[in-house]
Amino acid sequence: MANHILSVLVENQAGALSKVTGLFSRRGFNIESLAVGITEKPEISRITIVVDGDERTVDQVCKQLAKLICVLTVMALDSENSISRELVLIKVNAQKARRAEIIQIVDIFRAKIVDVSRNTLTIESTGDNVKIIALLDLLNEFGVLEVARTGMVSLERGSDTINKQVERN
Amino acid sequence: MANHILSVLVENQAGALSKVTGLFSRRGFNIESLAVGITEKPEISRITIVVDGDERTVDQVCKQLAKLICVLTVMALDSENSISRELVLIKVNAQKARRAEIIQIVDIFRAKIVDVSRNTLTIESTGDNVKIIALLDLLNEFGVLEVARTGMVSLERGSDTINKQVERN
Repeated sequence: MANHILSVLVENQAGALSKVTGLFSRRGFNIESLAVGITEKPEISRITIVVDGDERTVDQVCKQLAKLICVLTVMALDSENSISRELVLIKVNAQKARRAEIIQIVDIFRAKIVDVSRNTLTIESTGDNVKIIALLDLLNEFGVLEVARTGMVSLERGSDTINKQVERN
Repeated sequence: MANHILSVLVENQAGALSKVTGLFSRRGFNIESLAVGITEKPEISRITIVVDGDERTVDQVCKQLAKLICVLTVMALDSENSISRELVLIKVNAQKARRAEIIQIVDIFRAKIVDVSRNTLTIESTGDNVKIIALLDLLNEFGVLEVARTGMVSLERGSDTINKQVERN
């Protein structure tokens, strides 16, 4: 079992996202993360899904996704050959006496402090899953109050694009 | 009509995401952006949804979301009182002669170059919707090849958290 990254282009219409997530849910696949945003063409959205499963099952999901009318293209990205990033916002307990320690961690991770209150700091960070888990792990010591993660987005390295695949279809 | 930010905590189970998106689709609401990721508690995911609609309709959606069994809490975030961020990966045409111009834009936006090929650059940037649109707009001149956006995540400013609301329920 391993994590697979699927990049799915869909028509930007009410219901497309629901059809895609419904397919995963009916097949009992747990989605590790999902991110959806508009693309360079406003009528098309790109959904990036990280799913846990063996090669054969993921292959089947790709074929079933491709059959949905709202789906324009499906591409399984090779994690070694793609750039993957996620964004996280973390609100952490930050009493005055320990604030300097937190700022040090933020600097090391090249994260940013985006809000401050008397007892808390809110931190923004981007990176791959491993980096974000490491940061959360270090901040846990101070008390993580809440976390909002975007889910991962990925693009193939180099000059190839998913659009080339659409044009071929 | 305005954009509303909904923060929804759900049990991290196959089907929760599909139930939430299904509700939007049945009511004909178009989701502007959606991001889902695990929280500080691995059994709970946080879905951030940006939806366009009048106050009354969004209020109804919140009530209907709260009725779903998989939903633990729903919170409408006030955009003026929250930190909102999105991450974008952009692959842009970058012939040698124009590469310096692109790097200049990347610096001004405090974005990062995360991949390079003979003819392309891949750029990572975070910010609110306005900043990302401005960056995409400038890069369009060079030829944007593909874009992957995460959708927005938001946390309330200050020390309050969505969890306080869960505890109250």
